[in-house]
Amino acid sequence: MAKLSQPLQHFTKFESFDLGNELIELALLYKANPALDKAKGEGKRIGCIFLNPSLRTRVSTQLAALNLGLEPIVLNMDKEGWALEMQEGAIMNKGTVEHIKDAAAVLGSYFDMLAIRAFPSLTNKEEDVSDFVFSQFVKYSGIQVISLESATRHPLQSLADQITIRENWSGKKKPKIVLTWGPHIKAIPHAVANSFAEWTLGMDHDLTITHPSGYELDEEFTKGAKIEYNQSKALEDADFVYVKNWSAFNDYGKIISTDASWMLTEDHFKKAPSAKVMHCLPVRRNLELSDEILDGKRSLVQEQAKNRVYAAQAVISHLLGTI
Amino acid sequence: MAKLSQPLQHFTKFESFDLGNELIELALLYKANPALDKAKGEGKRIGCIFLNPSLRTRVSTQLAALNLGLEPIVLNMDKEGWALEMQEGAIMNKGTVEHIKDAAAVLGSYFDMLAIRAFPSLTNKEEDVSDFVFSQFVKYSGIQVISLESATRHPLQSLADQITIRENWSGKKKPKIVLTWGPHIKAIPHAVANSFAEWTLGMDHDLTITHPSGYELDEEFTKGAKIEYNQSKALEDADFVYVKNWSAFNDYGKIISTDASWMLTEDHFKKAPSAKVMHCLPVRRNLELSDEILDGKRSLVQEQAKNRVYAAQAVISHLLGTI
Amino acid sequence: MAKLSQPLQHFTKFESFDLGNELIELALLYKANPALDKAKGEGKRIGCIFLNPSLRTRVSTQLAALNLGLEPIVLNMDKEGWALEMQEGAIMNKGTVEHIKDAAAVLGSYFDMLAIRAFPSLTNKEEDVSDFVFSQFVKYSGIQVISLESATRHPLQSLADQITIRENWSGKKKPKIVLTWGPHIKAIPHAVANSFAEWTLGMDHDLTITHPSGYELDEEFTKGAKIEYNQSKALEDADFVYVKNWSAFNDYGKIISTDASWMLTEDHFKKAPSAKVMHCLPVRRNLELSDEILDGKRSLVQEQAKNRVYAAQAVISHLLGTI
Repeated sequence: MAKLSQPLQHFTKFESFDLGNELIELALLYKANPALDKAKGEGKRIGCIFLNPSLRTRVSTQLAALNLGLEPIVLNMDKEGWALEMQEGAIMNKGTVEHIKDAAAVLGSYFDMLAIRAFPSLTNKEEDVSDFVFSQFVKYSGIQVISLESATRHPLQSLADQITIRENWSGKKKPKIVLTWGPHIKAIPHAVANSFAEWTLGMDHDLTITHPSGYELDEEFTKGAKIEYNQSKALEDADFVYVKNWSAFNDYGKIISTDASWMLTEDHFKKAPSAKVMHCLPVRRNLELSDEILDGKRSLVQEQAKNRVYAAQAVISHLLGTI
Repeated sequence: MAKLSQPLQHFTKFESFDLGNELIELALLYKANPALDKAKGEGKRIGCIFLNPSLRTRVSTQLAALNLGLEPIVLNMDKEGWALEMQEGAIMNKGTVEHIKDAAAVLGSYFDMLAIRAFPSLTNKEEDVSDFVFSQFVKYSGIQVISLESATRHPLQSLADQITIRENWSGKKKPKIVLTWGPHIKAIPHAVANSFAEWTLGMDHDLTITHPSGYELDEEFTKGAKIEYNQSKALEDADFVYVKNWSAFNDYGKIISTDASWMLTEDHFKKAPSAKVMHCLPVRRNLELSDEILDGKRSLVQEQAKNRVYAAQAVISHLLGTI
Repeated sequence: MAKLSQPLQHFTKFESFDLGNELIELALLYKANPALDKAKGEGKRIGCIFLNPSLRTRVSTQLAALNLGLEPIVLNMDKEGWALEMQEGAIMNKGTVEHIKDAAAVLGSYFDMLAIRAFPSLTNKEEDVSDFVFSQFVKYSGIQVISLESATRHPLQSLADQITIRENWSGKKKPKIVLTWGPHIKAIPHAVANSFAEWTLGMDHDLTITHPSGYELDEEFTKGAKIEYNQSKALEDADFVYVKNWSAFNDYGKIISTDASWMLTEDHFKKAPSAKVMHCLPVRRNLELSDEILDGKRSLVQEQAKNRVYAAQAVISHLLGTI
C-alpha cells in the first residue's frame, strides 16, 4: 500500500497538497483493484448517518466500506429516527426529541467510524458558517468522522473531482480550471462550490471563478482564485469547467439571479474547444446545464460519480490506518 | 448446477417455455438447498431500487441475493432520494431533482446488477403500456436489470406462482387454471394479472380468465386464454384459482365495478371441490378474498410468498451466469 | 459458552431470576469480547421490523446480530411498506392494505428470527394492555420473536439497565433503586417504566417508585415495590435513580401533571450524595432531566446505551441456542 504521510483524525476538508495527492493516488489504486485491501476493515463498522436525502453519497460510501471489509449501517436520522436538538442548554419542550450531544455520543460508542451528512439551513448564516450541526457530531461522538457534506464543504465530492481531473489531464502546463455559477430555481448550499475551490487551489491548480454579481463565495475558500464576472471571458481557453449553482453568500441564502444565459451550451465553448465539463450531480437539465453538454463528449459527470466510490474508499482506508 | 439454455440480458418478462422450465427447476433446487451456490455471487453487488412500497419483494430479493453471496444494497428512491424526471429534453425547473438518465447511469456504474420496482401511474396509458419508467432504467443503466414489478408486469411473482403450481399438481392432465377478478376499492395496476396470464399461457397451461364486463385485460397478455364473463361457469372444475383485482384497461385506470359477489367464498367452489386458491399478497381480506378461503385448506398464498425467495434466487443466479 | 438453564421461545418480558442472571453474565462476556461467538448465527437471518421510529434499538440490534454472524435485514413497515390491519375478521375496505396475520406469516417464513417494535396507541387501553399488535406477530409468524419494545414492555432496555446496575454496584447490601416519574409535554408509553420495575423486582432488588398522584403504573409490574408520592423522601439514600416519564395508566394516556419540580437537579440529591442517575434515552433535556445531571458524574445514560448492544447479543445468542 501507498504510505500516507499525515495521519488524519477526521475527514472534513482539504488538509494539504501532500495528503490530497496521496488520497488521489490511493483512490486510483483502488479503482484499478477495488478488492486490494478487502481485509483491512474486517470486524469494523461504519455508521452512515443521513440528516438529508442522498443517492450517490449513500451508495458510494456503502460500496467503499464493503470494498474494505467494513460493515456499513445506514441510519436516516430524519426519517427512521427523530428531530435532534442542536442548542446547548435548550429546554426541550418543543419538537426536538433528542439532543445531538446524546445521540452523537451513543452513535460514537456503537461504531468504529461515522460518516455524516448535515446540510445547512441557509437561514442562519452564523450557524451554517461554523458548520454547527456537523461539528456537534465531531465533538460529541468521540470517534473518527467523515463528512458526507456539511453546511460548508463536500470534501468526498471534491476528492472525486480531483481524481477525475488527474485522469483527464496529460498536458504539461497546468490546466485552466473554471468554476461557473449556473442558474437554479431553489436556494442551493455553497458546500460543493466551496470545496471545489478549496481543493482545486490546494492542489495547486489555476482556478477562475465566474458568477453574476452578488454571488461572491466566502473568501475563506476562494482566496487565490481569479474572480471574473464575465462568464464568456472566464471560459476562454478553459480546460475544465465545473458548473454549479449556489445561492448568495453575502445576502445569505437568497436567489439574486436566474439568468438563463449562464446555462452552458456548445455556443459557450467557441473559445474553449477542448474544455471538459464537470458537475457533481444531481443536475437539473436544461436549467443548470444543457442536455447538449451533458450528453456530449465534454461531459465528465459520470466519471466523477464513479470516482465517488474510490474517493470514499481511499479516505476510509486512510482513517482505518490510524485506528 | 442445471445448465441454462438461453442466456438472459435482463429479467423483465416471460421469455420461453424452456427458460421458464429451467428457472422453475433451478428454484426448486434452491428451495431444497438455499446455500447450494453460496459463492456464486461473491464480491458482486445488486442495487435494489424502490420507487414504491414493498414487503415481500423487498425482503425476498435481499434474501435471494444473500443466498448467492451477493451484497444487496436497498435504495428507497422515493424516500431516501428525490423525485426523478422522466421526460427526455425536459427543462427541469419544477419539482424533479434528477433526470432518470443520470441516476440510472450512476447506479449502473456502481452495481453489478439492478433490481427495480416502478409502478404505473394508471393515468397515462401510453406511458404505462410502454413500461416507460422501468425501460428508462434498462436503457440508461447499462447493466443487467431485474423487474421487481413494472407498470405492465411482475415476472418474479409469476415465476413464484408457476413454481407453486408445479409443486401442487401431480395430475396427469393439464390443470385447469382460472384467473378471476376480485373486488377492490382502489384503482390497482394490471401487472400481476398480465404476468400471470403471460406465464401461465407461456408454460402451456389451460387458462380461463373471468371478470365483469369492462375489465378486459390487454390482449397482448391474454391471447390464448378463454375469456368467460360468468364467474360461476369459469370456476367449474378449476384446479387452481388465482384471485386478483385490477382496474379497467380500456377505460384506463377506472373502477367500473365493486360487485361483492365476485369475492370468493366456499359457496363458489361447489363445482370445483378440490380447487386451490392463489393470490400474490397483499390481499384485502373480506374485500378481494374471504377469510374463509384464505384461512382454509385451499389457500396457497403463503407457499407463493415463500417461493418468491427461490424465484428471485433462480433469476439472479441465471443472470450471474452471463456476466 | 455459559450454559443457559431455561430455553426461551420468545424474548418479550422478564422470565426468571436465573435467566436474568444468565443473560447479564453472557452480556458481560460479550462486552469483553464481542466476537466470542462470531460463527454462532452463520447463515441465519434476523428480520428487524419497525412500526415506529428508533435509533439505539435499531442500531444496537443490528450490531448484536452481526457480532453473532447473523445477517440482519431492517424493514420499516410504517414507511417502506404499508398500514397493517389488526382486527380479526375485518372487511378491509378502508386504509389498511395487508392483514397482520398474512404479513407476519410471510415474515416468519422468510427469517429465522424476528425482532419487532410496536408502540401502544395510548388511546385503546384494552388493546394496549394485551400487547395486541406485538402478540399478533408472535402468534402468526411461527418463529422466535424478540421485543424491540411493545405496548407494555421494553425488555432489551431493561436487560441493559440491569447489566449497568451490576457493573456499577459493588456494595455488600442491596442497592436502593428508585424509579422516578419526570415531566414531559407529550403522552408517553408505560413500557420502559413497566419493564424496569418488572426486571428490578425480578432480579430481587429493592425498588421504590415515586410519581405525582394519578400516575400509578399497572400493578402487574409494580407489585412488591414501595410507592412513595413524596419524591424527596423517595430519593433519600438512593443508590440508583431511574428517571422516566409516562402518561397516566388509570386515566389512560392522559397528561395529569407537568410539574417541573419533579425534574432532577443536584439539589434533589442532598440526601443521596452518591446516587447514580439512569435514563433509557432519548431524553428531553431540561424537561425530563437537567443538563446538570446528564452531563455530570452521576449519569449512567451512555453506559446504558452501550449495553444495549450486549443485551441484544446475549438474547439473540440465547435464542439461537434453541433453534
